[in-house]
Amino acid sequence: MRAVIRRRAKLLCEEIADPPLGAGQVRVKTLACGICGSDLHALHHLDRMIDLTKRAGGTGGADPSKDMVFGHEFCAEVLEHGPNTSGGLKAGARVVSVPATTNPQGGFEVVGYSNLYPGGYAERMVLSEAMLIPVPNGLDSDVAAMTEPFAVGAHAVAKARLDKGSACLVVGCGPVGLAVIAALKARGHGPVIAADFSPTRRRAAETLGADVIVDPAKESPHAQWRAFNVPASMLEAQWARASGQAVARPIVFECVGAPGVLQSLIEGAPPGSQIVVAGVCMESDRIEPSLAINKELELTFVLGYSPEEFAATLRDIAEGRINARAIITSRIGLDEVPAAFTRLSNPEADVKIVVEPWR
Amino acid sequence: MRAVIRRRAKLLCEEIADPPLGAGQVRVKTLACGICGSDLHALHHLDRMIDLTKRAGGTGGADPSKDMVFGHEFCAEVLEHGPNTSGGLKAGARVVSVPATTNPQGGFEVVGYSNLYPGGYAERMVLSEAMLIPVPNGLDSDVAAMTEPFAVGAHAVAKARLDKGSACLVVGCGPVGLAVIAALKARGHGPVIAADFSPTRRRAAETLGADVIVDPAKESPHAQWRAFNVPASMLEAQWARASGQAVARPIVFECVGAPGVLQSLIEGAPPGSQIVVAGVCMESDRIEPSLAINKELELTFVLGYSPEEFAATLRDIAEGRINARAIITSRIGLDEVPAAFTRLSNPEADVKIVVEPWR
Repeated sequence: MRAVIRRRAKLLCEEIADPPLGAGQVRVKTLACGICGSDLHALHHLDRMIDLTKRAGGTGGADPSKDMVFGHEFCAEVLEHGPNTSGGLKAGARVVSVPATTNPQGGFEVVGYSNLYPGGYAERMVLSEAMLIPVPNGLDSDVAAMTEPFAVGAHAVAKARLDKGSACLVVGCGPVGLAVIAALKARGHGPVIAADFSPTRRRAAETLGADVIVDPAKESPHAQWRAFNVPASMLEAQWARASGQAVARPIVFECVGAPGVLQSLIEGAPPGSQIVVAGVCMESDRIEPSLAINKELELTFVLGYSPEEFAATLRDIAEGRINARAIITSRIGLDEVPAAFTRLSNPEADVKIVVEPWR
Repeated sequence: MRAVIRRRAKLLCEEIADPPLGAGQVRVKTLACGICGSDLHALHHLDRMIDLTKRAGGTGGADPSKDMVFGHEFCAEVLEHGPNTSGGLKAGARVVSVPATTNPQGGFEVVGYSNLYPGGYAERMVLSEAMLIPVPNGLDSDVAAMTEPFAVGAHAVAKARLDKGSACLVVGCGPVGLAVIAALKARGHGPVIAADFSPTRRRAAETLGADVIVDPAKESPHAQWRAFNVPASMLEAQWARASGQAVARPIVFECVGAPGVLQSLIEGAPPGSQIVVAGVCMESDRIEPSLAINKELELTFVLGYSPEEFAATLRDIAEGRINARAIITSRIGLDEVPAAFTRLSNPEADVKIVVEPWR
């Protein structure tokens, strides 16, 4: 079958063999697969990513010197059932899945970051039957493939200690920031302030329901807190609470992941803020702990999602609470993937590019 | 009256005038006042501290170029009532208080970091009557003065999301770390692992109830987590929870406040840890956000305490749940304060030095 292979930090469109089906596995046809920012990073820094996973206590079994087929944001069609499967979802059923399966040794493989199993930049994949979720009728495959990136937002929002009075600021409106905005609005939270330097991404933030859109080149997003009843100091917050006044708890979502952003948020965020860090900064970064202490900030670092959050996100998309279609800006075939990786470095050109390997 | 004055980064023992009593204020005789690590820092870097307070949204009205009398961990005796006081606590009553009063303009003054009102390194202070709490009979004044530093521990523990299954690691057993250990044990939490390079401080940690004492020069404190049912990876934690197993949530208290400690905890702490940052690192510091993300760590920066936490700490000390006396290693007069500041830089010499200005 055809696939886009990562080999020594280059992407090549080549023929590869279908891996054998193990116990509990099914073969699927890839219908649509989003390109994720982490794939762009992994193209050049896969060794660093695998090393991080290992240092965090993960298995991280992949070998960066061996071939790998990326793609973990997918929708697929069931083709063939392996041994010890129930066949509950018949051939022809359209499915999504958390990108996880097991290898013959019983270990854990991340579909899209595995040397054994190709990800969604291939015509066919091998998935675990137990992880499959059927796509509701009427939901387009490219939109269903957005379950994965939007689940990332659902998880970040689940980790935020939101209450009725919370005011939210989403810094960075790439796919992660947009997923956070969508998850906040799907759960009825707000007001949501969204900030991004890119006009394309600011428009996307508006489409996904952000209440206030800020161009940080023109004004600080932190200038907006005043309008949403956020106390300017710990003392003001304490006095307000002591006298029974409702005060808004500020929640900031860091969805950029570049050096310096965390410190700029420590400087700009109101005292008592929770900063949910969803943007993955791959470089070492400098912060000022004493300022974070004086403001009693909370930095909550988040990654991924639970299977429950993934399933709930598919329902949010299928039932119209999340407009997942709005982030898809291009649909391409396998041949166009290498060029798409280059194009995604420009935030004006695209938000989410979906690969359709059958094209 | 006699006082130890900070003047241009030097400490001088001199005569100063008693400030006039404003509305709601009382004059007290200082019976005992602890020397805090933040005083040591403020001697040389008061401008930096005031700047930080301002940047954090605080009032920070003090002027580092003007005289200041430190001392915010005190026990005192009521001498004289100013205008608009109730006199509920008569002259002769022994009291403690959060170190806060108001200035004639209605602004907020931190007693011990104010140009207007001297702190506890003076024979007499001016306090707000509304803030006074009577010291129970039989509780020695030097021990009652420890309410403030132990309240810092109570606040840090209140900010930790502890449950029955939490395992705690306290890194650094200076006064802040010891206060955290005491607060954890007073509330029935544990096991508590305590780590410090200093034998004196490790002994103090044991006295205050730490369950496991580690010399980090000999072994990593993180080697202890295994013994307390803490999962080694996010996946292990998820699988354990999914199969209904109880897993311990790891909580780390950073009570050192030196550059590099935060990153060493990000590296050493188990996935899913909450790191409560109570040690005040006054320098900019380097962290690796991608590792914190891969472990889904939470960094909770904490400062000070609420009036309720302060009052509860006095009760914990008076009723024997916290052995506050155990941290007092010396009692000195005002003349000895400058030398004591030097001595406190050696962790073997002292834990807490109490100033008794009447000596």
